Amino acid sequence: MNPPRVTVISTGSELTAGRSQDTNSSWIANELFGLGYSTEKFLVLPDDPKLIRDELKNLASGASKESPVLLVMTGGLGPTEDDYTLEVVCELTSSKAVLNAKAHDRLQALYRLRGKGFQEALITALRQVSIPSNSTVLNNSVGIAPGFWSELQPGAYLACMPGVPSEMVTMFKEELVPLIQKQFQSGELYSDFLFIWGMSESLFQQEFIKGIETLKNGKAVWGVAAKKGFIRVTYQSGDKNLVQELIEKTKEKYRGLCTGDLFEEFPKFLSERKLTLGTIESCTGGLAAKILTDRAGSSEYFLGSVVSYSNLIKENIVGVKKETLEAHGAVSEETAIEMADNGARILGTDLAISITGIAGPGGGTPTKKVGTVFIGTHIKGQPTEVKELFLPFKRELFREVVAATSLYLMYNRLRKLV
Amino acid sequence: MNPPRVTVISTGSELTAGRSQDTNSSWIANELFGLGYSTEKFLVLPDDPKLIRDELKNLASGASKESPVLLVMTGGLGPTEDDYTLEVVCELTSSKAVLNAKAHDRLQALYRLRGKGFQEALITALRQVSIPSNSTVLNNSVGIAPGFWSELQPGAYLACMPGVPSEMVTMFKEELVPLIQKQFQSGELYSDFLFIWGMSESLFQQEFIKGIETLKNGKAVWGVAAKKGFIRVTYQSGDKNLVQELIEKTKEKYRGLCTGDLFEEFPKFLSERKLTLGTIESCTGGLAAKILTDRAGSSEYFLGSVVSYSNLIKENIVGVKKETLEAHGAVSEETAIEMADNGARILGTDLAISITGIAGPGGGTPTKKVGTVFIGTHIKGQPTEVKELFLPFKRELFREVVAATSLYLMYNRLRKLV
Repeated sequence: MNPPRVTVISTGSELTAGRSQDTNSSWIANELFGLGYSTEKFLVLPDDPKLIRDELKNLASGASKESPVLLVMTGGLGPTEDDYTLEVVCELTSSKAVLNAKAHDRLQALYRLRGKGFQEALITALRQVSIPSNSTVLNNSVGIAPGFWSELQPGAYLACMPGVPSEMVTMFKEELVPLIQKQFQSGELYSDFLFIWGMSESLFQQEFIKGIETLKNGKAVWGVAAKKGFIRVTYQSGDKNLVQELIEKTKEKYRGLCTGDLFEEFPKFLSERKLTLGTIESCTGGLAAKILTDRAGSSEYFLGSVVSYSNLIKENIVGVKKETLEAHGAVSEETAIEMADNGARILGTDLAISITGIAGPGGGTPTKKVGTVFIGTHIKGQPTEVKELFLPFKRELFREVVAATSLYLMYNRLRKLV
Repeated sequence: MNPPRVTVISTGSELTAGRSQDTNSSWIANELFGLGYSTEKFLVLPDDPKLIRDELKNLASGASKESPVLLVMTGGLGPTEDDYTLEVVCELTSSKAVLNAKAHDRLQALYRLRGKGFQEALITALRQVSIPSNSTVLNNSVGIAPGFWSELQPGAYLACMPGVPSEMVTMFKEELVPLIQKQFQSGELYSDFLFIWGMSESLFQQEFIKGIETLKNGKAVWGVAAKKGFIRVTYQSGDKNLVQELIEKTKEKYRGLCTGDLFEEFPKFLSERKLTLGTIESCTGGLAAKILTDRAGSSEYFLGSVVSYSNLIKENIVGVKKETLEAHGAVSEETAIEMADNGARILGTDLAISITGIAGPGGGTPTKKVGTVFIGTHIKGQPTEVKELFLPFKRELFREVVAATSLYLMYNRLRKLV
């Protein structure tokens, strides 16, 4: 079947009231884009069955086998009375709600585990393990409510998934993508990406993209997204070699600043070489450690961390000299060096990252402005290096950029040593 | 005029491709909600003039003086060739683009400041200082492009604003709100919310919502969202007292499980009482410390943390006894107690939270399954308490629930002591 016109729909009154932010639509559109399908619009609707029904009907109405429509909807599959998706889709497809055996068993097992008190709630909870009789189940391996895939009219397909991001993401990848790929041709696109650290979108466009012929003549397209501490550059084309060429050209230009997905690459690098790592953090408050332990199995390379938010903890636990703190201040190259070196010693690691800076909005001085940070990298047998950065961002972004950049700085030193 | 049916529209191909996240719509809906207008849907469209025109036409078509429509649109007002808003609105309202004198002067003044080269760029930039002849200007006091307010047909109003959040926010508050309030009656809605910890959406509905008459007869509406470790319950009504009554009834039923926004309330509680806090974390890997330092000024009450991911760090830095670890294991009540007590001592804090558990997917045993966690709370002068929880969630969710719940447990103990 031809590539579909895609609409991504999120439902939830907390979304249209502005109390919650819809992050699902953009994630889904980005994934679909990677698979070669482009999205025509997003629609966000409150938990109102009439509105949802009217919009679905309207979106499906233009579809035919030649000009198909794909609607990817999240939300409204929970157990409560403001969850209307099942009811609406049953009505639109003249189906009945039927219990899905697999989801039912899973629900019972989960409720049994959680003990008594949950037995009573089981009756309400059962509501969410049904799907329309004329639909294909999308199994939920993370949470409880299954999703489903229905044909609203010839050529109009609707996928319904839970609104909880972790459940939706897994269901999308494991269950929905195969159905979409079976049903629709994609543009047969190849794509690849890389990270460029410490780079801005506009500088990259000005310095690099403008000079690339294959991007001007439309043989390949590019995309760039500003992330925390890096930009993520994507190239896409029907020609696989062209994509690889563009990746190589970018690497030639930016060399050490380029990595793959650092959050995959760096842990793999550490495990393979049996290196252990710890962090001594001040302004990031444990965020670098949190990122390093996001992955299962991180105890293989990550041993621990001290969050020395107060100066007394820098002295008493980490062992930074009082004189160093007094002479140079907590936010200084000298303190960053002692934090990294003592950190490796007290944590018993091969590698240690130290971070000390001013996240703001308060705490800045005329000589050390809010946004100043020193990142130290201790590598056993090597002299410790400290990088001073000035990142004048708001508190939250500052902390994210600093934590991610500290991992990049360590990784980039290490890979040069190999 | 009656309250309008509101649609919030964002345009931008970077949004529908999933490369950028639309944050404007939810901000606008939240502001409108606060003014008493509720939003019916969000629409996100690419920079495609035909699609934008068709959608605007369609949305305006149902409007009348009795049943008015308000469309609030952001994006597409810039100087580049993919900015189509002005063109589309001129077409829909049979207007011409006319230069706005105030915006034009502002642009010239800005370009003069930037110096030479401005003449060449000015021609392109001029495009963005025009508005449709049949419209009211919305001045831009932050950036360059003015917005505008047009009537597409009787009862159908369209406000167009720039997509840059800082420009949009100021324009919305200073220029658009007075126009909206002059044109439409608002619904005067009141709402309030609370958190209930360790509660599921379905249990809450079963146990509580079902028995409340005012929610059955529609005098008030409720909403619930499952968050990490708690549910967020919202009540809304035209009658302020009714909302307060519902909040009070919920508190009576759930008592100690209820808090306001814990992430605001708990830090405020600590600052006001000049209490200091630290964490000793294992499975959460620094996440509790990260959450505690999310807020500016957290150094007032948060002193630091040890992430004792490895057992050696539990022994050497925290001082958990080797015998305790050998006899009971790292994930045990006994270890949690020593982590909390020694934690308070080495960090020099009044309060310490300890967290030790199995985030999985690996590391479980027949007696200690993945999802088991012990959370210790040390309060100076009180016996340390440990709560064992079993939270069979995936790694990421498990860590978020555990970190948030640990703050709740500490807060709940403290507020009972006051």
